Amino acid sequence: MGKQNRAVVLLSGGLDSSTALAWAIKTQGWDCHTVAFDYGQRHKVELKSSARVAASLGVTDHRIINVDMRTIGHSALTSDLAVPKDDEDHVGVPVTYVPARNLIFLSLAAGLAETVAASYLVIGANVVDYSGYPDCRPEFLEAFVQAARIGTKAGSEGKKLEISAPLIELGKDEIIKLGTELGLDYGLTSSCYDPRPDGAPCGHCDSCFYRRKGFERLGLEDPLVYPDF
Amino acid sequence: MGKQNRAVVLLSGGLDSSTALAWAIKTQGWDCHTVAFDYGQRHKVELKSSARVAASLGVTDHRIINVDMRTIGHSALTSDLAVPKDDEDHVGVPVTYVPARNLIFLSLAAGLAETVAASYLVIGANVVDYSGYPDCRPEFLEAFVQAARIGTKAGSEGKKLEISAPLIELGKDEIIKLGTELGLDYGLTSSCYDPRPDGAPCGHCDSCFYRRKGFERLGLEDPLVYPDF
Repeated sequence: MGKQNRAVVLLSGGLDSSTALAWAIKTQGWDCHTVAFDYGQRHKVELKSSARVAASLGVTDHRIINVDMRTIGHSALTSDLAVPKDDEDHVGVPVTYVPARNLIFLSLAAGLAETVAASYLVIGANVVDYSGYPDCRPEFLEAFVQAARIGTKAGSEGKKLEISAPLIELGKDEIIKLGTELGLDYGLTSSCYDPRPDGAPCGHCDSCFYRRKGFERLGLEDPLVYPDF
Repeated sequence: MGKQNRAVVLLSGGLDSSTALAWAIKTQGWDCHTVAFDYGQRHKVELKSSARVAASLGVTDHRIINVDMRTIGHSALTSDLAVPKDDEDHVGVPVTYVPARNLIFLSLAAGLAETVAASYLVIGANVVDYSGYPDCRPEFLEAFVQAARIGTKAGSEGKKLEISAPLIELGKDEIIKLGTELGLDYGLTSSCYDPRPDGAPCGHCDSCFYRRKGFERLGLEDPLVYPDF
């Protein structure tokens, strides 16, 4: 039996990244190190979800990296800009876009991949439902990993570094179907961009909207409670 | 007269980045926004130098972004690993290499470039003296900007983003010559990786070594005082 592959998985604690982690562990058999980011997000509650999901899947190295993106500003997720509600008809890049977020997160993950000697970066990016983010597109992910290979010690010495985005072409319902088949408990995850003070999801932001629609399409019940419905 | 170009300049407060800033302002006439990183470095004293240099060159938007790279670890600059002294004959990537540092710093700078609508990222990377860092090479910088163009809202909407590394082919003496001609006060900068408790440079780390050699080659006196000489 060959040496087990090692991966760094971006794990926000949301539906997508949690499913990507379950996929990496259960279908690929990778030794997964997970990383979440405390970046000044208003939905900091996701950090707790992230730790819960990692623990539930047996991850023993889960890290939270502090990177204060409020210093950069200009996003509804990290500033006083309002999070749009019931806005499924938006056009273009939404105001919840955080400048260069995946570029920044993947860069930090690439640094961690060097120190833990991982060959894979796993990201839950997907573009089918809610495709407004430029940094979720496959062409970005490929360009990123190319830069990371050249710009790191590991990569420049020829060590393998691949990026894996297993959900890239899945709709929310397909993602939930996959995670459910893999035994992921979606009750541990949190998706809301603008949680209530008690941590409950608002039910009306884009992220809640697509999550709820995904469960609906599948005829499954979302284990999260939405107090406003 | 055309609209003034805007740039985000990575300004650690060291010799190279300070010279790159002087170059961008005085030879290119760019409206420069500067950014320094509080990343858990042992030479945190450079943050003060960074602010001093920015102020001395008339920069009105200088930001310090907190990004805790100790969580990533594995570098003499951010952990308990010793900083090598009098080690000019090292081979390969030195232990002061911080995993993915320029990838991470440039990513954060690209985020800031979006919010301030800058078209240029300026970095003081150079590869002539002390070329052990993979993330200072021109091929990395080009791959990075390609990823940043694809992965940001600004870039994906066709807004110009270029990376400028004006010192890339200069030796330390040529860099100091350029900065001196531009009126930069090197007494405001700090280069040491392992400063003494009073903030004075050690004089013996690689960064001090190449700085001192640069001044020597030019027959100029380094305005910094090295207590150990």
